[in-house]
Amino acid sequence: MIPESHPRYESLLLREKIVKAFKKGILADSGMIAHGRGEAFDYLLGEKTSNPAKSAIKAGAAAILLSKNPVFSVNGNTAALVAEEMVELCRISGGKLEINLFHRTPQRVNAIEHVLKHAGAEKVLGLDDEKLKYLEGIESPRATASASGIYDADVILVPLEDGDRAEILHKTGKIVITIDLNPLSRTSQMSSISIVDNIVRVLPLLIQEINQLKREKKENLQQILDNFDNQKNLKESLHVFKLKK
Amino acid sequence: MIPESHPRYESLLLREKIVKAFKKGILADSGMIAHGRGEAFDYLLGEKTSNPAKSAIKAGAAAILLSKNPVFSVNGNTAALVAEEMVELCRISGGKLEINLFHRTPQRVNAIEHVLKHAGAEKVLGLDDEKLKYLEGIESPRATASASGIYDADVILVPLEDGDRAEILHKTGKIVITIDLNPLSRTSQMSSISIVDNIVRVLPLLIQEINQLKREKKENLQQILDNFDNQKNLKESLHVFKLKK
Repeated sequence: MIPESHPRYESLLLREKIVKAFKKGILADSGMIAHGRGEAFDYLLGEKTSNPAKSAIKAGAAAILLSKNPVFSVNGNTAALVAEEMVELCRISGGKLEINLFHRTPQRVNAIEHVLKHAGAEKVLGLDDEKLKYLEGIESPRATASASGIYDADVILVPLEDGDRAEILHKTGKIVITIDLNPLSRTSQMSSISIVDNIVRVLPLLIQEINQLKREKKENLQQILDNFDNQKNLKESLHVFKLKK
Repeated sequence: MIPESHPRYESLLLREKIVKAFKKGILADSGMIAHGRGEAFDYLLGEKTSNPAKSAIKAGAAAILLSKNPVFSVNGNTAALVAEEMVELCRISGGKLEINLFHRTPQRVNAIEHVLKHAGAEKVLGLDDEKLKYLEGIESPRATASASGIYDADVILVPLEDGDRAEILHKTGKIVITIDLNPLSRTSQMSSISIVDNIVRVLPLLIQEINQLKREKKENLQQILDNFDNQKNLKESLHVFKLKK
């Protein structure tokens, strides 16, 4: 039990979730290390959602609402931290969930499927009984995608994505929305809409934004999307990061 | 195998070492997460030793050379990354190695002892057959120390130390040298000499500095130590951290 008085209480609770998920086989070995990197970036961000992140969330919500086939990618860390929210996101947007792993093993796919089903998911793409396709004809485990999911999608949300995969996804020309605490990462730099914030704060806000924008006209949503400049937004995010006492 | 061309090659090699150590039971669960935090801070530091870090290393070398009983604390991450260098540090300074774990289990103590012996250590303190003492009368696993080691030491090097332990060590009035990539951490703030740098770069430099300063007169070493201002140095380290492209 972590005492509530601990200066890093909230952060330690998330860490506990990650360790538990690791022990259940949901995370890759590098998933715990990746979480640690996130902790450090979030610490430097002051552990709160910045204004540029809010703008990126709004643009992401507009893109999802305008999409014909939005797909939400789930890896181990995402499943460990926000499984329920990912399911809710599907429910309100009519999107699909796809398991999408950099370090893919049948055990991890099963473990994550179990977490998502437990969180209420009706259907999960990217399972092992599916014949996965390859993006951009790249026959590498980095490029796998479900035929009716990421392969066919026009908008994909890939939270906590790896740089190699982000590069491949970028090449497809799809709208790629990412959630990444490092504004300088390849993933952030290569995506169409990079939300620089902690995934546990982003998902509730994204859900809220979609619920609010649902009533908007298509042209207004398109305007929100057109007015969003990812490189400019990333620069603004950079300014939020500061090492100060 | 990580291709040498990968943009994060050096960092990925260290990550591999950490994952291997974790699988051998050398690291605590949180050790991988801690390594991830270190990766992020090192990334922001530009992955090189800054001038303030060099000054802190020099002050640390002087303190070790002036010490009557210098003790070098080893935890899982330290053993995983710089076991040989820790042994070399003992050899050139006449100091002692002590296993000092926040999450102490007999299995981890044994695993780390094995790594240190394999790296050439003759004697290792802080083992389980020792009756450990408590620092400052705090009867907590956070406060354990070997009677002839950390308990008796006048100078201790505690790389990658936890904030709770750093607070207790600070209370003892000993000279506490730490290696920590986060200049704002409790550990950095509470220590006498905080080296804000990656441990894999620090150890070779610290060994080199001790070898160079060995011939200096005691009063010159004392002057180096007296001229070192940790709070000022930490502020200078903060300026090195920048998010830039």
